[in-house]
Amino acid sequence: MSVKKNFYSDNVSGAAPEILAALLAANTGDTAPYGADPTTEGLQARFAELFETDVEVYPVGTGTAANGLCASIVAAPYGAIYVSDAAHLHGSECGGAEFWSGGNARTIPVPSTDGKIVAAELARMVDEAVARPATEVPPRAISITQGTEASTVYTLSELRALVEAARARRLWVHMDGARLANAVARLGCTPAEATWKAGVDVLSFGATKNGALAAEAVVFFDRELARTMRYRRRRGGHLFSKMRFLSVQLEAFIENDLWLRNARHANAMAQRVREGLAKIPGVRFRSPTEINFVLVNLPQPVWDGLVADGYSFSRRGAPAEGIVRIACAFDTTEEAVDALVETAHRHARARQEAW
Amino acid sequence: MSVKKNFYSDNVSGAAPEILAALLAANTGDTAPYGADPTTEGLQARFAELFETDVEVYPVGTGTAANGLCASIVAAPYGAIYVSDAAHLHGSECGGAEFWSGGNARTIPVPSTDGKIVAAELARMVDEAVARPATEVPPRAISITQGTEASTVYTLSELRALVEAARARRLWVHMDGARLANAVARLGCTPAEATWKAGVDVLSFGATKNGALAAEAVVFFDRELARTMRYRRRRGGHLFSKMRFLSVQLEAFIENDLWLRNARHANAMAQRVREGLAKIPGVRFRSPTEINFVLVNLPQPVWDGLVADGYSFSRRGAPAEGIVRIACAFDTTEEAVDALVETAHRHARARQEAW
Amino acid sequence: MSVKKNFYSDNVSGAAPEILAALLAANTGDTAPYGADPTTEGLQARFAELFETDVEVYPVGTGTAANGLCASIVAAPYGAIYVSDAAHLHGSECGGAEFWSGGNARTIPVPSTDGKIVAAELARMVDEAVARPATEVPPRAISITQGTEASTVYTLSELRALVEAARARRLWVHMDGARLANAVARLGCTPAEATWKAGVDVLSFGATKNGALAAEAVVFFDRELARTMRYRRRRGGHLFSKMRFLSVQLEAFIENDLWLRNARHANAMAQRVREGLAKIPGVRFRSPTEINFVLVNLPQPVWDGLVADGYSFSRRGAPAEGIVRIACAFDTTEEAVDALVETAHRHARARQEAW
Amino acid sequence: MSVKKNFYSDNVSGAAPEILAALLAANTGDTAPYGADPTTEGLQARFAELFETDVEVYPVGTGTAANGLCASIVAAPYGAIYVSDAAHLHGSECGGAEFWSGGNARTIPVPSTDGKIVAAELARMVDEAVARPATEVPPRAISITQGTEASTVYTLSELRALVEAARARRLWVHMDGARLANAVARLGCTPAEATWKAGVDVLSFGATKNGALAAEAVVFFDRELARTMRYRRRRGGHLFSKMRFLSVQLEAFIENDLWLRNARHANAMAQRVREGLAKIPGVRFRSPTEINFVLVNLPQPVWDGLVADGYSFSRRGAPAEGIVRIACAFDTTEEAVDALVETAHRHARARQEAW
Repeated sequence: MSVKKNFYSDNVSGAAPEILAALLAANTGDTAPYGADPTTEGLQARFAELFETDVEVYPVGTGTAANGLCASIVAAPYGAIYVSDAAHLHGSECGGAEFWSGGNARTIPVPSTDGKIVAAELARMVDEAVARPATEVPPRAISITQGTEASTVYTLSELRALVEAARARRLWVHMDGARLANAVARLGCTPAEATWKAGVDVLSFGATKNGALAAEAVVFFDRELARTMRYRRRRGGHLFSKMRFLSVQLEAFIENDLWLRNARHANAMAQRVREGLAKIPGVRFRSPTEINFVLVNLPQPVWDGLVADGYSFSRRGAPAEGIVRIACAFDTTEEAVDALVETAHRHARARQEAW
Repeated sequence: MSVKKNFYSDNVSGAAPEILAALLAANTGDTAPYGADPTTEGLQARFAELFETDVEVYPVGTGTAANGLCASIVAAPYGAIYVSDAAHLHGSECGGAEFWSGGNARTIPVPSTDGKIVAAELARMVDEAVARPATEVPPRAISITQGTEASTVYTLSELRALVEAARARRLWVHMDGARLANAVARLGCTPAEATWKAGVDVLSFGATKNGALAAEAVVFFDRELARTMRYRRRRGGHLFSKMRFLSVQLEAFIENDLWLRNARHANAMAQRVREGLAKIPGVRFRSPTEINFVLVNLPQPVWDGLVADGYSFSRRGAPAEGIVRIACAFDTTEEAVDALVETAHRHARARQEAW
Repeated sequence: MSVKKNFYSDNVSGAAPEILAALLAANTGDTAPYGADPTTEGLQARFAELFETDVEVYPVGTGTAANGLCASIVAAPYGAIYVSDAAHLHGSECGGAEFWSGGNARTIPVPSTDGKIVAAELARMVDEAVARPATEVPPRAISITQGTEASTVYTLSELRALVEAARARRLWVHMDGARLANAVARLGCTPAEATWKAGVDVLSFGATKNGALAAEAVVFFDRELARTMRYRRRRGGHLFSKMRFLSVQLEAFIENDLWLRNARHANAMAQRVREGLAKIPGVRFRSPTEINFVLVNLPQPVWDGLVADGYSFSRRGAPAEGIVRIACAFDTTEEAVDALVETAHRHARARQEAW
Repeated sequence: MSVKKNFYSDNVSGAAPEILAALLAANTGDTAPYGADPTTEGLQARFAELFETDVEVYPVGTGTAANGLCASIVAAPYGAIYVSDAAHLHGSECGGAEFWSGGNARTIPVPSTDGKIVAAELARMVDEAVARPATEVPPRAISITQGTEASTVYTLSELRALVEAARARRLWVHMDGARLANAVARLGCTPAEATWKAGVDVLSFGATKNGALAAEAVVFFDRELARTMRYRRRRGGHLFSKMRFLSVQLEAFIENDLWLRNARHANAMAQRVREGLAKIPGVRFRSPTEINFVLVNLPQPVWDGLVADGYSFSRRGAPAEGIVRIACAFDTTEEAVDALVETAHRHARARQEAW
């Protein structure tokens, strides 16, 4: 395999070898379908151990499904979910909250800085909505993305302040942890500290972006919230008949800290990208790089040059902003990063010489 | 691996070796996420070839998702879907039609015999509903399960009669083909004859029950119907980021007729089960065995004996009916069937001797 | 005004004079909109007095809205509502339960006799559904129509048995009281005995069929259930800006027992119709006549003759059954009933003579 | 009746005498229920005449219902509706678009000035959404409020530019005409010019704010859009059984230009309020006063003084903005306006003297 040139997303990678091995090992003999198999049932204990508390775990196929199911539950019977204006749940899931709730949830975007919202603004918006009861969807929950869509991480104290503002207003707390591994790796805290100890009620636990083939999980810390989950997951088409094939991915993902090792590596590679590009004149970073990708404005010739050389990135924000996302994954090598950086420098120099 | 004793479902099996091999082969190098990869894009041509016509193919993770998406589309903007009273979509998906449509679809059960409904009854019910326009959900579609939940198959002329009644009333025609392979194998017709040539507009194409790990597809013969599909699939959490892993399963599934070979084998095994059990006094079959499972009343001692010996089956219908479903899969061996039959006979004899 | 010949529905009548007078009296001066006016606020006390307990009352415009709102609340966050197979909510509201709940409610029809369901059948169906948790919408509520769509009334002991079966299964109890007045008049009990004392949690309280112009109310006996009601009513378009015009109708309706006087009269008129028709050979009643309408098979010449003479009725059931509903209202006079009966007899005699 | 001090809303008024007279006149004899009466059927011709084209008219009880039904139809089968960020449909109906569509509609707020949006911004936002097809709800419609929530009116050329941008992107055009009468009165154009001739497909036609008791109408210019309307209205609880009582209000409303006469008067009164207040130091108007209300910042002592003297207004915007809405209605007299203005001046003078 040649050196990676595809930095479009952490999803361009395949599956980690440990995950694939687990999948193959699972294909022996018959087992109960629809999640009644021993691996799936065993996940409850594995995740309880990981999070140091009793939980209910429901494997699903995608992060959008995890978020949508959570949204439908925390907004139930009917209400608004306050989210960052950069939240995937709000802007990238084709109206998932409305869909999964049957029109009973609305996401309300809260202005963010570097992908993060703050308690004071949340409090102000919720209080205003409550004061106009015959006009606004009633506030019911917040959804916090950790790590954020801007490559940042809420510190534990930022997180606690946000949760406190929410709880004071009787809002449920959902965490979109599509990149929770990267956040925990960055914070150096325990998974428990990053979630329920900070007041999170239910978590979308991501694995696909970090080495799984296709497996995410909804983890309930408040088990009362899980009451309708098995029915909801079923009708939503995420009760896989051969569920064990999802469960073994999740099992392998958390075994021996694979998830954190993968995340630490991806984070470090993004840091390496950032440091490498920082010296290029005209490069402007758009947010701190605290997890596994870099948001940056590149000089046009550098961008053009990289694309001409076969590199892939994605754009973020409105086209006019010219923001490039450079995403690293569990399998991004130092060699690949260095090649990328070097190529960028070469194009930058070419431009300068041309002047 | 020991001889199969688990006849609970065709879903208790793992993945076929060809499918697993394809999955492994796909895990090399990076590729575009969210279905923009060459394999997924290539599926369009593969399925067009299979069905001898232009189609649009959308891989999804489960049959419930495939059915739900189809239901939301054929009932749109708002309407009723007429189904067999045995239909999975009606009774086994926790309200999937209502969910996927946001309360805009209702399934209306039509009385069935051996899992099949007939044109005259469909016509009568639809006509009555239309005559009461301010009270009934407006009829919009039918959904036909082929092969049925009762192990039977609509003949092509039965199918055409049903479609004709539907079309005369301007109803869309959905086919739930969770076991389409088994039906096509039974009918000995082409996939085209079994579907669009008979008037089917959109198909839930099943693979998981017949050898895939987790992969189904929605196949649009009427491409105008597909207009909102990519959005709907996204918000429903079935646009997998690493989509190629679903697509390679589907590709391998239809390559070299694997799907039909698997289905023919499973059908034959069910036939073998039936023939083997037929000689036991008190055994009463509940429907013809035209595809890969047997619906049967077993004498209580036979059932109890088989369970005591480690066999698994599922129940169908109300508990009082005592119906057992014995399901065969692509990997059910003759040896396993013969062992099952022999064990049943042994318990039957034991009973007789006990008298 | 000529003698009434329109027995199509209790809705063909206009408004009772007391209601109209109240409406006119309300059109003086300005007042707070959206139900913040004194009349609407005063309804709470009026209904508390009527029902001898604290309640929350929400005026709405139609019975379908009242039922739909209740359905969305008792099924929340997601679940099935068990209803009679004759229930208006199930078959006459174009999928209202699914709509108001956003696809989160499904009505499950329970077989009925004379419009009534019994506890044992309810219990059996709910227990079976619960035993199949990954396939059925989870049971959450029952909805009982009192008086029924078949002109009958649940006795208080029938009602209590039904409620007991529901409560034992943790189901909410909704009563569709579109004709509650007629039922209470028939039973001779108090409104409290007919509702919350029998275990009803929330009631659709009907007025329009019994003398109002357009006014119904949702009455919550379990006030916790009402938590989202004001938001739901608003988005559903039933928070009328000039709400007082609905509220004064309801106020006048319950004042001085107008509702019961109107109902007693309508019931008596239906009884008079029944007695008058009973003597005609070939007349076959389809259910007891306990409230304000008669379900009957008329000899074809009698029906044809009545229609030729300008009479209107509605049909019930499938066309082949030939069932006529003859509905009486608060303003149906004895003179009108006698004229109807006499005309029917005349056509019956004409047929006999023609033979 | 004393002089009006309630300027809280145009909804604090009762019904116009012509409307009430029509209501009373309708209460004679029986008639077909559910809109099959001659008055309701005759509305089709009346509105066709009013709008100089074939239309389909559906009376409903409230503006929220009219808007919600329209939203569910123009967004169908699934899509986004672009609206002004001040739109009632977006911010004042408790999530009505999501509700009526079952989660299949999302309102997307477009930044507005004086309550109006412009074609260029609409075009930019829609084009960006379409360019990101796997993330955004697909654009399907715009909804234009005429007159706006800021007391302004789109000129016919502004309206046409907006519609042109929408049509070029294949979007349906809905007009929220809760105050269409006031807009038409202001523009001095025909109802046809204000609506379908400018490209409007479906209209929420308001009457309640302008003299009706409780009656609005949905008017379809594109009759294909109306296909599911009768079913939707039924399940939404807006097919009133005694529909004629709504229809006669609408009939009287448009007869002899009552609607325009009422609107002209209310507009003139708002103008008179504005002119009267303009001379008070510190008064700052927040938008042009083109229809029947004034948005204004009053000096605190003026506001306090008016409230102390028994006047009522509503607030608009965030509390910190201190915006007062002073609403005039069909029955606001010159005398009442002059008394208001004079009282405001008195409090303003008192403040100055106190200094």
